[in-house]
Amino acid sequence: MCGSAMRFITAEAKASAGRLDGKMREKTLTMDTLNPQVKAVEYAVRGPIVIKAGEIERYLEEGGTKPFSEVIKANIGDAHAMGQQPITFLRQVVALCTFPELMDSPSFPEDAKWRARRILQGCGGHSLGSYSASPGVECIRKDIAAYIEQRDEGVPSDWENIYLTTGASDGIMTILRLLVSGKDSSRTGVMIPIPQYPLYSAAISEMDAVQVNYYLDEDNCWALDINELHRAHQAAKQHCQPRVICIINPGNPTGQVQSKKCIEEVLHFAYEENLFVMSDEVYQDNVYAPDCQFHSFKKVLYEMGPEYFSSVELVSFHSTSKGYTGECGFRGGYMEVINMDPEVKAQLVKLLSVRLCPPLAGQAAMDVIVNPPQPEEHTFKQFHQEKSSVLGALAEKAKLTEQILNAVPGIKCNPVQGAMYAFPRIFIPPKAVEEAKALGMQPDMLYCLRLLEETGICVVPGSGFGQKDRTYHFRMTILPSIEKLNVLLGKVRDFHIRFLKEYSGLE
Amino acid sequence: MCGSAMRFITAEAKASAGRLDGKMREKTLTMDTLNPQVKAVEYAVRGPIVIKAGEIERYLEEGGTKPFSEVIKANIGDAHAMGQQPITFLRQVVALCTFPELMDSPSFPEDAKWRARRILQGCGGHSLGSYSASPGVECIRKDIAAYIEQRDEGVPSDWENIYLTTGASDGIMTILRLLVSGKDSSRTGVMIPIPQYPLYSAAISEMDAVQVNYYLDEDNCWALDINELHRAHQAAKQHCQPRVICIINPGNPTGQVQSKKCIEEVLHFAYEENLFVMSDEVYQDNVYAPDCQFHSFKKVLYEMGPEYFSSVELVSFHSTSKGYTGECGFRGGYMEVINMDPEVKAQLVKLLSVRLCPPLAGQAAMDVIVNPPQPEEHTFKQFHQEKSSVLGALAEKAKLTEQILNAVPGIKCNPVQGAMYAFPRIFIPPKAVEEAKALGMQPDMLYCLRLLEETGICVVPGSGFGQKDRTYHFRMTILPSIEKLNVLLGKVRDFHIRFLKEYSGLE
Repeated sequence: MCGSAMRFITAEAKASAGRLDGKMREKTLTMDTLNPQVKAVEYAVRGPIVIKAGEIERYLEEGGTKPFSEVIKANIGDAHAMGQQPITFLRQVVALCTFPELMDSPSFPEDAKWRARRILQGCGGHSLGSYSASPGVECIRKDIAAYIEQRDEGVPSDWENIYLTTGASDGIMTILRLLVSGKDSSRTGVMIPIPQYPLYSAAISEMDAVQVNYYLDEDNCWALDINELHRAHQAAKQHCQPRVICIINPGNPTGQVQSKKCIEEVLHFAYEENLFVMSDEVYQDNVYAPDCQFHSFKKVLYEMGPEYFSSVELVSFHSTSKGYTGECGFRGGYMEVINMDPEVKAQLVKLLSVRLCPPLAGQAAMDVIVNPPQPEEHTFKQFHQEKSSVLGALAEKAKLTEQILNAVPGIKCNPVQGAMYAFPRIFIPPKAVEEAKALGMQPDMLYCLRLLEETGICVVPGSGFGQKDRTYHFRMTILPSIEKLNVLLGKVRDFHIRFLKEYSGLE
Repeated sequence: MCGSAMRFITAEAKASAGRLDGKMREKTLTMDTLNPQVKAVEYAVRGPIVIKAGEIERYLEEGGTKPFSEVIKANIGDAHAMGQQPITFLRQVVALCTFPELMDSPSFPEDAKWRARRILQGCGGHSLGSYSASPGVECIRKDIAAYIEQRDEGVPSDWENIYLTTGASDGIMTILRLLVSGKDSSRTGVMIPIPQYPLYSAAISEMDAVQVNYYLDEDNCWALDINELHRAHQAAKQHCQPRVICIINPGNPTGQVQSKKCIEEVLHFAYEENLFVMSDEVYQDNVYAPDCQFHSFKKVLYEMGPEYFSSVELVSFHSTSKGYTGECGFRGGYMEVINMDPEVKAQLVKLLSVRLCPPLAGQAAMDVIVNPPQPEEHTFKQFHQEKSSVLGALAEKAKLTEQILNAVPGIKCNPVQGAMYAFPRIFIPPKAVEEAKALGMQPDMLYCLRLLEETGICVVPGSGFGQKDRTYHFRMTILPSIEKLNVLLGKVRDFHIRFLKEYSGLE
């Protein structure tokens, strides 16, 4: 650095370096020395647009003015933050586990008390404050296995194949960690849908594996097309070894529900190509379209016959954060691991044990989800009402979102068959595309930033999930209340029309 | 594989491969294809000896007989599992947050209610079921900063430097992930004490970094010797670039409490050698020796003057799992990050956001620890009694453990100044060392296995933590009740005397 540049060193640079005896001390950890795989990670759901939304929120709180009075965060599947009420029974059980003195309280139902007692009996010292075994509390693992057997109409589930996790994300990262080999990482291909939930791309970046994209078919309600799987796999084999296929069903951000036939095709493909299957089924309770039904990958595998069911390595993920409970903050979840080599399973347990165990309150919440009140129990009626109310409202909002968006010229939205998101395709005029390019940003990022700044609505650009070249989208949740969702969709419509006019020179 | 070998293929191998059309289908994920860095991970605290203990427990439950009636698990710092009672006030606050209907209950104190209300106001939708911001709930971060300022007698703490974590382990892994560079990992040196808590060695293995050992001085109460730091650093520079130094104070498994002078020396060394400092201070409330005091690395750094305080990169870790609360199952914790490059900090937030947020119940528990009842509050008396009772009992047990062990010929135990463990040195006769070698195991593993099988006491071999060649130790917690601890120590004494006799040919 020459003398004159030295004089103009910025205040920030000074702040990042200490001084002793007049010499500058460089920081140890800088952008130059930071793990480059961390640098490569992107996570749009909490990315720049969400940081900007937070800034606007603070600006409004401090009395600043904008053309809107509040920021509506439709960027993340965070149901309670959008006003959804917790399921009473679930919270009762977790509160009883947390503060067992409540067992004496007449205001807590017996159905909740016996569940809490049973969970606590499975905890060291009968306390939620003990570590559990690394794969989770034994009786909760057993309840999960029983739930899966019931869900899958009798397909057997072994509780020793169940591992509780800290949300589904933790399970997904852990399984990928087994599959992506350190030094050979850049030869390990991980097949993911495009558009995808960006946890997958982030994990692949962090582990320096190869992301192998298979594109969902937007013209066919985001269906998974088996020919596209073959194409992607063939192409990837030229430069890496595809070892895993990840599927999200119901889809995030795309909201499609896979047909049984399609799942069979994927499993047959995985069988033939020796792929490990990771099936993200956290939205299994979120199916709205009357002609759609959730089919678990495991059940379909079973029905394909013993040759398949005894050999395809499959992990399925579930979570407390979605469904009708929306308990994101509890960080609860589980995975069921099928056909994993027994020695590898021991390695999995070892890896989990380094992080000790998943949070116990999340494990308890998961237990309620898989072991809910039964028709003969007193708590059934209220539980059932609350559950139906949440799922009914979501179904209504799914329909409403699709309808309003499709009435806007230049927006095309596939049916929201399941999950919690709409992923509409938006037409962005060439002039806006050029402007974005000049600013060094994706065209849909420009769109979403403008939407945020002009209306206070926070959605995530499609580029954060992946999309076909020269197509643009955004992801919005359907979680706001119907009232707020109507306002939100109206604002999106008006904004979109303004945006089109402005960039088509029609203003 | 030749034909005859094929015929003798084991049942297990058959089970791990499916058959279709007569051809064997190999598994995708096997011990051969597993990420070798996962294979390299070791975690003794939940390792083979603990798995064995679980087997014996099940055997006893099923009516089997042993020379003892129960397994006493002194392998892990799991206070509640050993019978320690939770702090009432902490559980009241978390229960109120979990089930806010309890705000109307007269049996919950107002002091707990206002804390719960305040926490919920910081949560999306006022619900513990929402995601928090990735670094944690803002008001909890502020409470933590205020606590640190008070603890450190006025040294400033900025709440934006506080990041909530899923237990301390999660924070430690995250910071190491920033520092250990993917492809260059095998050139990144991480200095750790020996003996160490095996999370560190496990993380280093998983990330394929270089473990740089500095040995604590057993003859000097496990003190950290600055000359040994220089030696280790010089030696490591021959084959890697040491970038981080990890310190555990109070020590795990060694129980020493570092002097202020020693901390100054470490910080000066880190300053001079451009090392990033990771200070594991999860046992900061666990100091028992009357002549010892906890000094935070941050406060000492501050007192060394602005040249140091404005430049040394330091992260300090804390947890809900230890101290007087012992709330391991809540997976709560935080880290304070000092002097991190602002751009790197943004990368840290991005990395945290991929995993969304730490569990909210754990965040709430952490809040109670840093914002406990004050003398003027009604709940103070009970809180203070419960806290003193736990810490008083631990101090007594620390003393008892040291005294009884030191009275056994062939065992030498340093004072348990702090933390929750004794790490006595045990003499193992040469004949036992030879026998262990013949069995392909560490001599202290043989010792601990025999101890487990003959007495039901589960402790962890010193080799799981690291130790100087030809010295042998085990780690045991001081958590069992005084009654049970007396029994345990008596059994250890009798076993050790028997073991010495047997292998010294004196029987």
